[in-house]
Amino acid sequence: MAALIIGIIALLAVPTVADLFPDCVNGPLANNTVCDASAAAVTRAQALVDALSIDEKFNLTGNTSPGVPRLGLYSYQWWQEALHGVASSPGVNFSKSGDFSHATSFPQPITMSAAFDDALIHAVATVVSTEARAFNNVNRSGLDYWTPNINPYKDPRWGRGQETPGEDPFHLKSYVASLIDGLQGGHDPPIKKVVATCKHFVAYDLEMWETYDRYNFDAMVTTQDLAEYYMQPFQTCARDAAVGSVMCSYNALNGVPTCADPYILQDVLRDHWNWTGEGHYVTSDCDAIQNIYAPHYYAPTQQQAVADALIAGTDLNCGTYYQTWLPRAYDQGLFNETVIDQALVRLYTALVKLGYFDPASATPYRSLGWSDVATSDAEALALKAAEEGIVLIKNDGILPLQLPTDHNTTIALLGSWANATTTMQGNYYGIAPYLHSPLYAAQQLPNVNVIYGGGFGVPTTDGWDELLGAAEASDIIIVADGISINDESEGMDRYTIDWPPASIDLIGQFASMGKPVIVLQMGDQLDNTPLLSNPNISAIVWGGYPGMAGGDALMNVLTGKYAPAGRLPVTQYPADYVNEVDLTDMGLRPNASSGNPGRTYIWYNEAVVPFGYGLHYTNFSASASQPSQSSYDISSLVSSCNKTQYPYMDLCPFEAINVTVKNTGSVTSDFVTLGFISGQYGPQPYPIKQLVAYERLFNISAGGSATASLNLTLGSLGRRDEKGDLVLYPGDYGLLVDVPTQAMVNFTLTGTQAVLDQWPQRPAQG
Amino acid sequence: MAALIIGIIALLAVPTVADLFPDCVNGPLANNTVCDASAAAVTRAQALVDALSIDEKFNLTGNTSPGVPRLGLYSYQWWQEALHGVASSPGVNFSKSGDFSHATSFPQPITMSAAFDDALIHAVATVVSTEARAFNNVNRSGLDYWTPNINPYKDPRWGRGQETPGEDPFHLKSYVASLIDGLQGGHDPPIKKVVATCKHFVAYDLEMWETYDRYNFDAMVTTQDLAEYYMQPFQTCARDAAVGSVMCSYNALNGVPTCADPYILQDVLRDHWNWTGEGHYVTSDCDAIQNIYAPHYYAPTQQQAVADALIAGTDLNCGTYYQTWLPRAYDQGLFNETVIDQALVRLYTALVKLGYFDPASATPYRSLGWSDVATSDAEALALKAAEEGIVLIKNDGILPLQLPTDHNTTIALLGSWANATTTMQGNYYGIAPYLHSPLYAAQQLPNVNVIYGGGFGVPTTDGWDELLGAAEASDIIIVADGISINDESEGMDRYTIDWPPASIDLIGQFASMGKPVIVLQMGDQLDNTPLLSNPNISAIVWGGYPGMAGGDALMNVLTGKYAPAGRLPVTQYPADYVNEVDLTDMGLRPNASSGNPGRTYIWYNEAVVPFGYGLHYTNFSASASQPSQSSYDISSLVSSCNKTQYPYMDLCPFEAINVTVKNTGSVTSDFVTLGFISGQYGPQPYPIKQLVAYERLFNISAGGSATASLNLTLGSLGRRDEKGDLVLYPGDYGLLVDVPTQAMVNFTLTGTQAVLDQWPQRPAQG
Repeated sequence: MAALIIGIIALLAVPTVADLFPDCVNGPLANNTVCDASAAAVTRAQALVDALSIDEKFNLTGNTSPGVPRLGLYSYQWWQEALHGVASSPGVNFSKSGDFSHATSFPQPITMSAAFDDALIHAVATVVSTEARAFNNVNRSGLDYWTPNINPYKDPRWGRGQETPGEDPFHLKSYVASLIDGLQGGHDPPIKKVVATCKHFVAYDLEMWETYDRYNFDAMVTTQDLAEYYMQPFQTCARDAAVGSVMCSYNALNGVPTCADPYILQDVLRDHWNWTGEGHYVTSDCDAIQNIYAPHYYAPTQQQAVADALIAGTDLNCGTYYQTWLPRAYDQGLFNETVIDQALVRLYTALVKLGYFDPASATPYRSLGWSDVATSDAEALALKAAEEGIVLIKNDGILPLQLPTDHNTTIALLGSWANATTTMQGNYYGIAPYLHSPLYAAQQLPNVNVIYGGGFGVPTTDGWDELLGAAEASDIIIVADGISINDESEGMDRYTIDWPPASIDLIGQFASMGKPVIVLQMGDQLDNTPLLSNPNISAIVWGGYPGMAGGDALMNVLTGKYAPAGRLPVTQYPADYVNEVDLTDMGLRPNASSGNPGRTYIWYNEAVVPFGYGLHYTNFSASASQPSQSSYDISSLVSSCNKTQYPYMDLCPFEAINVTVKNTGSVTSDFVTLGFISGQYGPQPYPIKQLVAYERLFNISAGGSATASLNLTLGSLGRRDEKGDLVLYPGDYGLLVDVPTQAMVNFTLTGTQAVLDQWPQRPAQG
Repeated sequence: MAALIIGIIALLAVPTVADLFPDCVNGPLANNTVCDASAAAVTRAQALVDALSIDEKFNLTGNTSPGVPRLGLYSYQWWQEALHGVASSPGVNFSKSGDFSHATSFPQPITMSAAFDDALIHAVATVVSTEARAFNNVNRSGLDYWTPNINPYKDPRWGRGQETPGEDPFHLKSYVASLIDGLQGGHDPPIKKVVATCKHFVAYDLEMWETYDRYNFDAMVTTQDLAEYYMQPFQTCARDAAVGSVMCSYNALNGVPTCADPYILQDVLRDHWNWTGEGHYVTSDCDAIQNIYAPHYYAPTQQQAVADALIAGTDLNCGTYYQTWLPRAYDQGLFNETVIDQALVRLYTALVKLGYFDPASATPYRSLGWSDVATSDAEALALKAAEEGIVLIKNDGILPLQLPTDHNTTIALLGSWANATTTMQGNYYGIAPYLHSPLYAAQQLPNVNVIYGGGFGVPTTDGWDELLGAAEASDIIIVADGISINDESEGMDRYTIDWPPASIDLIGQFASMGKPVIVLQMGDQLDNTPLLSNPNISAIVWGGYPGMAGGDALMNVLTGKYAPAGRLPVTQYPADYVNEVDLTDMGLRPNASSGNPGRTYIWYNEAVVPFGYGLHYTNFSASASQPSQSSYDISSLVSSCNKTQYPYMDLCPFEAINVTVKNTGSVTSDFVTLGFISGQYGPQPYPIKQLVAYERLFNISAGGSATASLNLTLGSLGRRDEKGDLVLYPGDYGLLVDVPTQAMVNFTLTGTQAVLDQWPQRPAQG
């Protein structure tokens, strides 16, 4: 008897800095143009590719790239994650202790987005890219990151909504532009800090629902919905923010798997959006190439699947399907060597642009080290991000808590989130320097005794006796509960969006005790109707996934150390919404025949708590300036747009509306100024309203005022028609300020409609 | 600052034998009649209950019973599990090492049921109850067990199907009768070995599907389907096998939560089935009482919910809702003390019947100890149970493997089950003395090199290169894959029943290598069509969840050490079946208006692999004896039934049909003789066929014969009408032997139809 075990396990490589960057001085590539820092980036990459054999080229097409040892080109892992901080992933290697054992862990995007603070996002992304470079310098990560997830969060059931900045396309666009700038180190800089990757292109927002999963789902989307909604964040990434990489998705779009679709990868992405900058490349989601063969069954063979994807413009395969099947497809003549060369030139140009082949002196990023990771400033920023993202949904006056100092107040802190630690990070997280749970933070409060009780054991009543006893023994009951990645996650959509009935039963028992009950609603949205309608529940605070300082931020809000000013970045739907529209229905507009009541606040008006909602510890009034004219001629607007400065007319400035906000209450507070456009113009049905500008104002003192500038562009006024064209229509327009609306500005467009952006059509089949 | 933490965690009690049985000699109860072993069991229990205060009574109504310290009545945990061996559960306490650190772990019921061997089940249950008593004697378990799960497995999506003996009601009834006899130590013995609990009463077979879950689901079932199918296993438990306990379920049945339904708990269970034996009691599923309030919203208040349940006849609450709310309901006058007394008398009579208040000398069970646990006989039985349950689904002649002895054969053993250990146990398992994975067992084979490769990383192709390399390097490829409790489990139904497309892709690549590919299909059924239709896949062996000796059993089958003879206990449906009928549709019969194509082999004829199917390593022919008459008069059949011996007419013997089985091949093998009744009689639609008898014949040598006796009863011929009555109808009957049918016996019933069992009707509302 003999036995040989080959375990399919990752090699636990001990990083060796020596094997990081190619040796362009003494290595085999020293005389290759790729090492010539004075040559153009593409020329350098082309020279490297020219030095490769065809078999070596095949080997370099997967995320786990073996490199080319004979050329001194080391192995490279293209798969790094950094959704809200440098994150555990194939290419990121935390040490077990000491230096590089952790990185700053910010809130999930769904929470940071509630801050409506683009500067915050830029600051966070700058920390992330700094820490990423520090990790790279000791060979503990690569230089490209598969972040952000920028699919609009159009249905509350989607399991990955927490990874996104919410449902609104304008908000997503502003957010992601700041994020990419922070990650990449400016707008298309000579040397990129890191490469960001906008994913998942496109119309990906279903994990697993009924018999559908993300691998087999064919999203049927109208051209209008596609151009106006699903594509918009990617337009910003590619056209406006010069993101280095785009990831095609698992799903098919209107019959074609996205990674094999030249219409979206070439016609839209590269041609229409001019995403042809140096080293811009497309990677597949992990095994999305395999999915072209099965379960999409779009290509009849594995060989055809890889050829289709490569020809369509997917340059890199997360997975091994390219590496396994491209050689056989090539032998069958299914593609030419020029196609694989094009892909590799893109990929290696990206590495050139990251300074991968340059001396360390070429960029200060190469000097970053452990002292630049998880700095006190970064930790303060993680707290600030959580505080800014917290949304006050209900308050009968109990908040901020007035805790006596002459005796201890007993707080019962109960629920599945009461002692949450990694749970606060959501998914795609790294190892944090600390994780301050609500319990930890409450225990730091002066003059407070904390009685802790964990999850409600829903649907079983295990432990209810203890929880009721804890509540009885307290002066104030704080429930920290909701959902987590046990309920919504990658690969798992929700079916229901109501609170578990047993939780409502138990919270109702707490609320009958005649003492204050405060609910910290955590994770993504649930229908809060039973909590909102119960007068014995004093307050509801939404915290989402607040990250490593989440507990501190929540307690700072409860005690008034920080005054909440976040706004919901998504609609809170009634529980029955899930029975009205299938998750597979990609339609945004109400549809009487399917029963779809409409999606997002743009098309749906029956929210339990609307998009943009958020209370304060004070009161604000808002007033808006009038525009320079009450009426505008469309042809004048178009002709006065400086096409050189604004090659994309939707970005041409229209008017800046000043909104003056006055704090009429007694507590200093931030205020998020939201501006929505509304009106009956363009094709029916008309959207209810659409966000077109926002600005967070900071620290407005009691009695004080501040002014936000809502900068409208022509695109703010445009609407997409059924062909997807962006059109300026004559009609009456209103700018609505705040949620609910506090001020309104009206103006008129006259004359003939004009196209701002002509959308490329999918070529006819055959 | 001060902080007080009350963790909601289980106390890690160190069992103390002294606190196990009440001291009936010197303790406070010594003079209470409960300690008088000569008194009747109910009288003894009543005496104990009479000694209790009302508050003490409330405390004793939950599964975690505090006992009554002043009376020397120790705390008692009613929640023990033993689905396929003494299992980890609130009342079962394995030691960390040494004595009582493990117990024999048999295959899951779905695998044992495939053996179609009732004697095997009795032997297994006898081992389980022996080990249970041994654990109890050292205060490491209680004396009642919440097993078996006997809901018929009518839809392949149900997450808990693995816990059941399959889809056929006759099979379930035979299986469970043997099981209860083995667990309880005979039929209603003077001292029970343990109390078994038939669950979940009734029509429970949905975990979580779309917006439905087991807590909120209201199963709408016709009286006909209820009487003929969903109720049948419980009829055997209660009426025929005198099971000690029945568990009511989470779901509602036709609008009424089962634990609050006097129709099923009183009219059917206790009145119609005469389930009124000493100490027979009903427990709720865990928090099913809470569910009456929410999410069923059947009772308007928590108080009404507990009163409804107690009055309906639910004697014990798994959970705390009785303990919390019965006092308040009592204060409101919602029930009388006699109702709670009745419940407690039932519960304590059950403990009396277990010898709980008797001296140790009263029963040999009290002498069982560690030397009686996991004996070599028990371990051999676990292997035998797995071997008998394995089903050969496809074989082109590759099996049994002929391994050369003059050189080593290299076997690639690949897939998520290749090194399965606890996975082989499914759910509700205990700590096994060992877990012999397929890999372990393969490594024990002489003249074999094993190359191991793990799961297919589906849907990602992670590790495919290594797996393909392993396959390339081997002489024989064995794939051990399928589903597990990651895919189907308590609380999680399936949406799809096809193999992951990526698995089929990869297995197809193995099959293109020109070497034998054998698939060990593990877990519950998947649509094997792509494997069956691929001529390069040589064999398929279904192993289900084969328990601690699962790897040994599988290798014994592959190598021919054991010749497989199991039969599928469920229908293998085509993948599209899930699109034809909702999981929530409880209808068994085909229904043109809903699209339901029918459920189980009784009503559905388009199986990929049918119920009862199983190949052998040899060939068998079967022939059947003729009945004593070709025609029978119904009135004569009824009048000749000895009502004293058979108070339930369905159990009256009809005819014993002898089936002679001849082994016409060259390998000694068992053979499972299956007899189905079929014919066009009674109400339309007619069932395709229904199992009425089976017998496993053992070790039939090549050329040899054996004879099975298929004992038909009047019930074998009866059919349920729309009122649920069991009726003998005139008509032509056929007994079909084997799958596919090898022999047929025909006879006729004449005269006027007669009712064998008149089903109780649900009283009209109000």
